[in-house]
Amino acid sequence: MSFGKEGNLVVFRFEDGKDVIESLKRVAKGHQIQSGVILSGIGMLRDFEISFYSREKMGYVTSKFSEPVELLSFSGNISIRNNETFFHLHVALAKEDNSAIGGHLKRATVHNTLEGVIMKLSEMKLTRDSETGILSMS
Amino acid sequence: MSFGKEGNLVVFRFEDGKDVIESLKRVAKGHQIQSGVILSGIGMLRDFEISFYSREKMGYVTSKFSEPVELLSFSGNISIRNNETFFHLHVALAKEDNSAIGGHLKRATVHNTLEGVIMKLSEMKLTRDSETGILSMS
Amino acid sequence: MSFGKEGNLVVFRFEDGKDVIESLKRVAKGHQIQSGVILSGIGMLRDFEISFYSREKMGYVTSKFSEPVELLSFSGNISIRNNETFFHLHVALAKEDNSAIGGHLKRATVHNTLEGVIMKLSEMKLTRDSETGILSMS
Repeated sequence: MSFGKEGNLVVFRFEDGKDVIESLKRVAKGHQIQSGVILSGIGMLRDFEISFYSREKMGYVTSKFSEPVELLSFSGNISIRNNETFFHLHVALAKEDNSAIGGHLKRATVHNTLEGVIMKLSEMKLTRDSETGILSMS
Repeated sequence: MSFGKEGNLVVFRFEDGKDVIESLKRVAKGHQIQSGVILSGIGMLRDFEISFYSREKMGYVTSKFSEPVELLSFSGNISIRNNETFFHLHVALAKEDNSAIGGHLKRATVHNTLEGVIMKLSEMKLTRDSETGILSMS
Repeated sequence: MSFGKEGNLVVFRFEDGKDVIESLKRVAKGHQIQSGVILSGIGMLRDFEISFYSREKMGYVTSKFSEPVELLSFSGNISIRNNETFFHLHVALAKEDNSAIGGHLKRATVHNTLEGVIMKLSEMKLTRDSETGILSMS
C-alpha cells in the first residue's frame, strides 16, 4: 500500500491481491479517520461480493463473482458503528464485455491496482446505530 | 432528514419515502447553497424516472421504474436557473439481478435511505441559461 | 470551454464536439494542475473508446462506440508520466435503452455538454512509472 496526504485528503494505492475493505481500514487507522467520505476510486476488482437489499427477503441478497472487473465508480462513507470503523460502500463495475453491474460492496480483492481518495472529516462525527445501521451526524 | 456541516461540506441522510430532489432543495435552502457539487450519494431509490437526451427526438426520452434499485453513484451540480435552485443529476443504479442502468435523474423516491455529500461553492457562481440550460461559471 | 475556480477546485464545461482528454489537458495546463482528482463529471459522450484490462491478452481490450451515451459517472486522477500530464479515467455510461456500460476511458468526444470538477493537489505529487504505469505519491 502507498499513500499521500494533503490537508484532509488521503490518496492511496492498493496492490494486486489485497483485500479492499481491510486495506481501507488500515488507511483509516493509519490516518486516524473515524468519519469520512470516499471521493474517488478506480482500478480493478476480482473475487468480490455485491449485494442488493431486499425488503421481501428482509436482508441483503448477495452475489459472488470471481472474474476481474473494471471499477467504474467507488462511493461511500466512513463512520463508527459499535466502536469500529465501518465502511458503507457502493460500486459500479464493468465486465470484459463492457456491461455494467453493481451494488453494495461486501468484499473484494484488488486486481492489478486500486487508486482512491478519502476525505477525512474532523469536526463532524458520523455514527451508525448498532442495530438499525442508520447513519447520523453530530 | 438529518445533516451535518463541516467547512463547505454538508453530509445528509434522507429517510425512506422522501422525494430526492425536493429533499436536496431543502438542504440547499437550509444551508444557503446556490452553487455546489454533489460529491457522493449512496443508498437506494424507487419510483424513479431516468432520461436519455435524444437529438433525433429533440428532447429527453424518459423511462419510469417503480422497483427498488441500489444507488451506485450520484453525480451532479447545483446552479441557479430562472432564480431557482436547479439540480443537474446523473445516477448509476443496480437492479436486484445486479445489472446496472442509469441516466439523467428526473425524479426519485428514497428507498430505505440515501446518504450523500454536497460541497458548497461560495466564491464561484454557477448559473444556467433559462432557455438553453447551458451552465456558466462566474 | 468555460471554467471557474474556487480554492483548489476548477469547475469546467466542455462544448459539443470537443475531445474530452485534450480538453482536460487544456484545463490542467491553464491551471497548472500536475496532480489532481476528478470529483465529478456529467453530460454526454459520443465516438468513444472504453477498455478492459485483460491479463490473458496482456493489455487493454478496447471497444469503440459511435452512438451518444449519458455520462453517469466520471472518476479518475491526474498525474505526471514521462514529464507529461496523464489522466487515468474510468466512466460509467448509459445507452438510450438505459442499460449501463463502462470501462477505462481511452478517447471520447463531448456530446451536447460535459460539466465537471477537478480538485488540484498542490502539496502532494502524483507520478506514474513510465514503464509500469504504477501510481506513487510524494
